[in-house]
Amino acid sequence: MDRPLVALVMAGGTGTRLYPASRSDRPKQFLPLGDGDASLLADTVSRAGFADETFVCTAPEHEASVREHAPTAGVLVEPEPKDTGPALVYAAHRIREQVGDCALVCLPSDHHVAGEFAPTARRAAEVAVDTAGLVTVGVEPTRPATGYGYVEPGADRGDHFEVAQFREKPDAETAERLVERGCYWNAGLFAWTPSAFLREARDSPLAPLVERLDAGEPDAGFAAADPVSVDYAVLERADDVYVVPAGFEWDDLGSWDALERVRHSDGENVVLSDALTIDAEGNVVAGDHHVSLVGVSDFVVAAYDDRVLVVPKEEAQRVREVVARLREDDRF
Amino acid sequence: MDRPLVALVMAGGTGTRLYPASRSDRPKQFLPLGDGDASLLADTVSRAGFADETFVCTAPEHEASVREHAPTAGVLVEPEPKDTGPALVYAAHRIREQVGDCALVCLPSDHHVAGEFAPTARRAAEVAVDTAGLVTVGVEPTRPATGYGYVEPGADRGDHFEVAQFREKPDAETAERLVERGCYWNAGLFAWTPSAFLREARDSPLAPLVERLDAGEPDAGFAAADPVSVDYAVLERADDVYVVPAGFEWDDLGSWDALERVRHSDGENVVLSDALTIDAEGNVVAGDHHVSLVGVSDFVVAAYDDRVLVVPKEEAQRVREVVARLREDDRF
Repeated sequence: MDRPLVALVMAGGTGTRLYPASRSDRPKQFLPLGDGDASLLADTVSRAGFADETFVCTAPEHEASVREHAPTAGVLVEPEPKDTGPALVYAAHRIREQVGDCALVCLPSDHHVAGEFAPTARRAAEVAVDTAGLVTVGVEPTRPATGYGYVEPGADRGDHFEVAQFREKPDAETAERLVERGCYWNAGLFAWTPSAFLREARDSPLAPLVERLDAGEPDAGFAAADPVSVDYAVLERADDVYVVPAGFEWDDLGSWDALERVRHSDGENVVLSDALTIDAEGNVVAGDHHVSLVGVSDFVVAAYDDRVLVVPKEEAQRVREVVARLREDDRF
Repeated sequence: MDRPLVALVMAGGTGTRLYPASRSDRPKQFLPLGDGDASLLADTVSRAGFADETFVCTAPEHEASVREHAPTAGVLVEPEPKDTGPALVYAAHRIREQVGDCALVCLPSDHHVAGEFAPTARRAAEVAVDTAGLVTVGVEPTRPATGYGYVEPGADRGDHFEVAQFREKPDAETAERLVERGCYWNAGLFAWTPSAFLREARDSPLAPLVERLDAGEPDAGFAAADPVSVDYAVLERADDVYVVPAGFEWDDLGSWDALERVRHSDGENVVLSDALTIDAEGNVVAGDHHVSLVGVSDFVVAAYDDRVLVVPKEEAQRVREVVARLREDDRF
């Protein structure tokens, strides 16, 4: 490639549905939910070893933790967390200043990836440079998930596709149809050159932010920006968008039931905790406590610090409701 | 009465089925499971205010806690815990030495009592003195409980009955029949004079213990004694046994589901903890953690220190199995 390959790890989120493992002061990316003892962020930075340089973009309150979990990476601190749209604009702007118009691969810091990551990442970067467009990595679905957005591939361009359209999280019936039609999961993994991305962002609701960044006023830019995802603000309205199929297993670890997909069961339960199970099957047990389950099936039981959560596995998404209530009382 | 009235509070047990509230180093009697902040033991000592003097009998490892929770009571430390049979023999022997042949009312330290306790206790003591026999307090059943022993009354002697027979914990069908026949729950509340009780104990498997105590060798006496309940060792084989009906509400708080009977529900759940419940009904939630329940019905969730327990309410007795397994690993 004619330019540096830079990895940008996005570590500004919270991962609320993994409460009580995730808390306001301990977002999901700092939790050791991978195969070893390392945090998801540390695992992601390792995975970014294919790049010439790695940056982590995070919110001010997590800067110290990021430096601890990712000591080899450069750290970009966005003025305030406003979802992926503003964060990616800010990071692209900063990285172009520091590194020039590199090939940028953007990785979420809190997802599960198994298998060979680098070839896909490199290919995505190449396509981004070759097309001067925006590239998303598409994961071949293993089930009709309703919790993910989908990417519908259009014209076949050899080892990648034009994007025909993006689909928001579908209902169950639509999800079945999207999987049958060969759509990909939108994994939140992107590649572009900073110039191409900022060009598209200037033609989006994020235009005022780009202008302020150009003027050297990032705080004012964030103050003017609404929280918005990059998918909604930029990708879904851009013309030159491509999808590169992933050559690895992926899960966003979005909620407790995901642990069952990515972690080994002991034959009866998935246990990330000290636990004693008697007539208990299909449960996900996690935390830093000793948990005893008797006659309990298909539940999530998570106990961290002074917090305990019990919810049927198939209602694991409802942890959102818990977090919403806790936030009302400033107890998340 | 022609002699002192002495209350003997038995505080040597563990209450294993209330794990993880109860632990080897924190038996149930030291937990604040009553209406206020006081421990069950402290509540029991208050309830013993009818007596001229109060003693608490406990095991060596709990002596310090007993002195803390019951600063006004005398403390008797049995050489080792061997169930109620040896403990009551030891206590009767010691109290006769210290107070003389008083009227002794024996109270478990970890039960729930609501209403007027003193009149029943005094009446039981009077019957014990008048008959020179052994007296048990019978509680009128409010349901066909299978977790309690029963006392079948015989000849009516005015305000008390002769005991026709004791019945061990029955099966459900037998329990129905016993309740219909007017049997009482055996509440583990007894009255006797030390001399009458030791007379009967000399005619029981506890005879070697009584002999060694007479010889001033309590340690040898306990070494020779097998663990046995007073019901089995003495009461069930004695002739002069009487039952005085209780004038109060009673529950042995034997397992977590009992909390539902003795503590007020918030309309949906019985909560002895900091808790957040969403679509959750009929649960018992207890502990020193913040517990969130979503979509959970009729469960016990108890979280104390570094331990969490989740079990369906109707299987609450199975906490025994948890404790048995923890004891195998010396982790109870």
